[in-house]
Amino acid sequence: MTRIVIVGGVAGGASAAARARRMSESANIVMFDRGDYVSFANCGLPYHIGGDIESRDALVLQTPQSFKQRFNVDVRIGCNVERINVASKTVTVRQLATGASYEEPYDKLLLSPGAKSVLPPIPGLINSRSFTLRTLPDMDNIMALIERDKPTHATVMGGGFIGLEAVEALKQRGLRVALVELGKQVMANVDAEMASPLHQAIKSHDVDLKLATAVTAVQEREADLQLTLSDGQTLSTQLLILATGVKPEIELAQQAGIEIGELGGIKVNQRMETSVADIYAAGDAVEHVELISGAPALIPLAGPANRQGRIAADNMLGGDKRYHATQGTAVCRVFDLTIASTGASEKMLQRNGRDYEKIYVHPMNHAGYFPGASAVSLKLLFEPTEGTILGAQAVGKDGVDKRIDVLAMAIRAKLTAFDLEEQELCYAPPYGSAKDVVNLAGFVAANYLRGETDICQVEDVLSPAPNQVVLDVRNPPELKNVGEVAGAVNIPLDQLRERLNELDDTKEYLVTCMVGLRAHVATRMLINAGFKAKNMTGGFKTYQMVNACL
Amino acid sequence: MTRIVIVGGVAGGASAAARARRMSESANIVMFDRGDYVSFANCGLPYHIGGDIESRDALVLQTPQSFKQRFNVDVRIGCNVERINVASKTVTVRQLATGASYEEPYDKLLLSPGAKSVLPPIPGLINSRSFTLRTLPDMDNIMALIERDKPTHATVMGGGFIGLEAVEALKQRGLRVALVELGKQVMANVDAEMASPLHQAIKSHDVDLKLATAVTAVQEREADLQLTLSDGQTLSTQLLILATGVKPEIELAQQAGIEIGELGGIKVNQRMETSVADIYAAGDAVEHVELISGAPALIPLAGPANRQGRIAADNMLGGDKRYHATQGTAVCRVFDLTIASTGASEKMLQRNGRDYEKIYVHPMNHAGYFPGASAVSLKLLFEPTEGTILGAQAVGKDGVDKRIDVLAMAIRAKLTAFDLEEQELCYAPPYGSAKDVVNLAGFVAANYLRGETDICQVEDVLSPAPNQVVLDVRNPPELKNVGEVAGAVNIPLDQLRERLNELDDTKEYLVTCMVGLRAHVATRMLINAGFKAKNMTGGFKTYQMVNACL
Repeated sequence: MTRIVIVGGVAGGASAAARARRMSESANIVMFDRGDYVSFANCGLPYHIGGDIESRDALVLQTPQSFKQRFNVDVRIGCNVERINVASKTVTVRQLATGASYEEPYDKLLLSPGAKSVLPPIPGLINSRSFTLRTLPDMDNIMALIERDKPTHATVMGGGFIGLEAVEALKQRGLRVALVELGKQVMANVDAEMASPLHQAIKSHDVDLKLATAVTAVQEREADLQLTLSDGQTLSTQLLILATGVKPEIELAQQAGIEIGELGGIKVNQRMETSVADIYAAGDAVEHVELISGAPALIPLAGPANRQGRIAADNMLGGDKRYHATQGTAVCRVFDLTIASTGASEKMLQRNGRDYEKIYVHPMNHAGYFPGASAVSLKLLFEPTEGTILGAQAVGKDGVDKRIDVLAMAIRAKLTAFDLEEQELCYAPPYGSAKDVVNLAGFVAANYLRGETDICQVEDVLSPAPNQVVLDVRNPPELKNVGEVAGAVNIPLDQLRERLNELDDTKEYLVTCMVGLRAHVATRMLINAGFKAKNMTGGFKTYQMVNACL
Repeated sequence: MTRIVIVGGVAGGASAAARARRMSESANIVMFDRGDYVSFANCGLPYHIGGDIESRDALVLQTPQSFKQRFNVDVRIGCNVERINVASKTVTVRQLATGASYEEPYDKLLLSPGAKSVLPPIPGLINSRSFTLRTLPDMDNIMALIERDKPTHATVMGGGFIGLEAVEALKQRGLRVALVELGKQVMANVDAEMASPLHQAIKSHDVDLKLATAVTAVQEREADLQLTLSDGQTLSTQLLILATGVKPEIELAQQAGIEIGELGGIKVNQRMETSVADIYAAGDAVEHVELISGAPALIPLAGPANRQGRIAADNMLGGDKRYHATQGTAVCRVFDLTIASTGASEKMLQRNGRDYEKIYVHPMNHAGYFPGASAVSLKLLFEPTEGTILGAQAVGKDGVDKRIDVLAMAIRAKLTAFDLEEQELCYAPPYGSAKDVVNLAGFVAANYLRGETDICQVEDVLSPAPNQVVLDVRNPPELKNVGEVAGAVNIPLDQLRERLNELDDTKEYLVTCMVGLRAHVATRMLINAGFKAKNMTGGFKTYQMVNACL
């Protein structure tokens, strides 16, 4: 009989407990959580505040009773595991209600304590109107304040996943909302230009978006909070959501002498073993390997946590399962937009000094002639000689998660842009196109990799070299209605063949259009006619996204 | 200057013409089509009839003028290419309007004539109220009859993609509709049990679905058609859509002595070259290699046609591109359901004598606690030792195309069920689950492959061996409300641990529940307790789907 003790009963811990029971009927499984809930839907919390999820009960996936009944797991809530006694292979547990403590023996111990909020050191930040949003009680407290005080204005600090979901939830509740983000963009896991459509969407929903802004002090008054901002302004608000990021819960592990990684997470090997024998760790508390860089990373996501818990359970019971790496596939709904990403971002590749190339496409999510078509803006990052896909990011109204899921699979399989060219995907007019978004990204990248079309970026067009000319091949009404590329010569594509004599073969043409498709035709035409030309990848749409970040 | 002649101006031909121009400004490109349109959206035709696509103009993607203007392609519509003169490298062209014919020389010739309808030899089938639905004029004729005669009843022959789309379109137009299908199922590219939810949906939309039924005679009367059916009944209808399948257009190729493949399509190599020098072929007319079997196949889909045209264009201009294989990824909307598939079906694997195993899962498309969740029924076919994925089929209301696209990518990359277990996909409550549909399919298949859980199929439960007992671990209200498994003993999962003493360790238990999840827990519990047990994959939902086909 193996005595398994699990610390933390949400994603990683609950998955491990259920899996351990499925693997062994005889194991003695005890799962501790210091909170009053296990296995609750923490990803659903903002949606209950916003009203999408009506029933609070829907968020409680398992109870201690249901865990006992189905899995014969001894779940002890309201119990804080205070110490690991490595030599005696016990944990010291304190019952929070009574203050009593006792020792629980283990043969195998799994640490899945999760992450905790990082709160910036701002005077007055902790007060009766400030809340994090990570647990059911957090959510209950926020909703209680809304019901009780009927606030008309709320402020969210931090524009990551939880911050953005909180903004939308509070808007849905009818509050006026400010979003204060320290960085120059929301959703820091994607590159700035890919976040810029989110900024538009957030502002168009009347959210007071304050980028590159810090809260420097908080003062609680009778019925509201006065926030002092780094730009010198003050903001009066009645509810403050603190979504300023998380860091691994490592105190228990540290105290036990378990090795902590360079980024501050519990260090584990592929078997999810820590540096101390018979102690495993899983979930947001651990530091694991990022797939593209092979470097350690903290990636607090539910999917990896669940799978790590599963793997740890198998290994605690004598198995030999491996967790390979995390690629960080993630998605977020931001009003009517969806943003998703997988693999490396451009800034991550730059940080790692990795060679890469990037292209942008903006095709429709499904056949343009079928009603409801909307653009998917996709950025593909790839290794510049072999074409191996390194990362992808997409934003749009519909079909975004599908393309990122397909590319997540391609990245995991170490496929190249050439594979994307060939890939057969579902096509009927309501679902896609014969040349899907993913195929088009493959075409553009592969054309570049084969040397069939050279590309340039918005940055090149913004500051062309003396021998370069920016050529916009859109039609004049588009320039007028949508906007111009600064300094560009305009020759519509359908006139270009007849007007080649207006071009100068000592120049290099940086060609642009709306999304890069006509510019591709024009670039090939120019190259075939003996001119030097490059296609500005992604066209004016990318130009707008990049410019919005400058 | 290379003289390129293209026969057929829709998917493959139009893609080839545009690509050829992008690759060479100097090539002389002539594209013939015997119809009056090129590059039209043939996949959109049913949706214009149904009203989803309001404007007919939206279906005309390019005109001869726009092709000339943008790509300098000489498009000649209403021109039938009657003969290829291999020795002189010319084609003989007849202008249909004038009857005049002339010879057009080529250096490289691309045949992309497409496929044509296969009409069964039924007396009276060709009449003024019978139409195929492959071209704009077909669509125009159908709509003209609807406007003119205001028919109240229409019949569709053939339950493939076009037939099903036509049924829905005609229902949307307010007609009563009968669907007559020769086979025992619609959508023959998927396995019968996966089509059975479509049968339910079709019937629930008041379509008179007649499976395993042939039309044996058609008699035109004043205002309607009398259809005689193989079951002896007659059916009175005012409009007959013939969607009984297609076969490659090969007459022109045959006459030129070009080799035809064993399935009746134009034989091509990976460079899209036919057996005759300088003659290429692409699209629905060609026979290519099916990815899983490596055998020749006829797979008339828009995506492959487009890519083949692109590859042929490159090669005609001196390139060396290869088309590798077609995996047959396809999708269809059938009322509120979506059905999609990729790779091999079970019947294809059986035909090829290939070893395989199959599992079914029915998880929600996104977090069950988020509103609008609906089940995705997924069948995964895989190689039974290594776990290489061979095929996948899915049906449901939402999220079906996404999962099949992800699995299409996995099949192309030759990934295994173990890779699906690990794959990180987009998760937030509106989009998926921390354990996505694809992960769950991977879990189930990998559990089987590792020998952790043995599985059985509905067929086993329908006729258990003498030493086998069917054990249903659902709760009694589910049996009452949803339905029972014939001959099953019922012990709810949450009572099973206490009631193990009721079981007989000389028996083997075939365990079932609603979707296979609780049965997995039960199967593991029984195995861990020393009993023999197998999980009936997919549970009662699969049981219903299979039973509906018997």
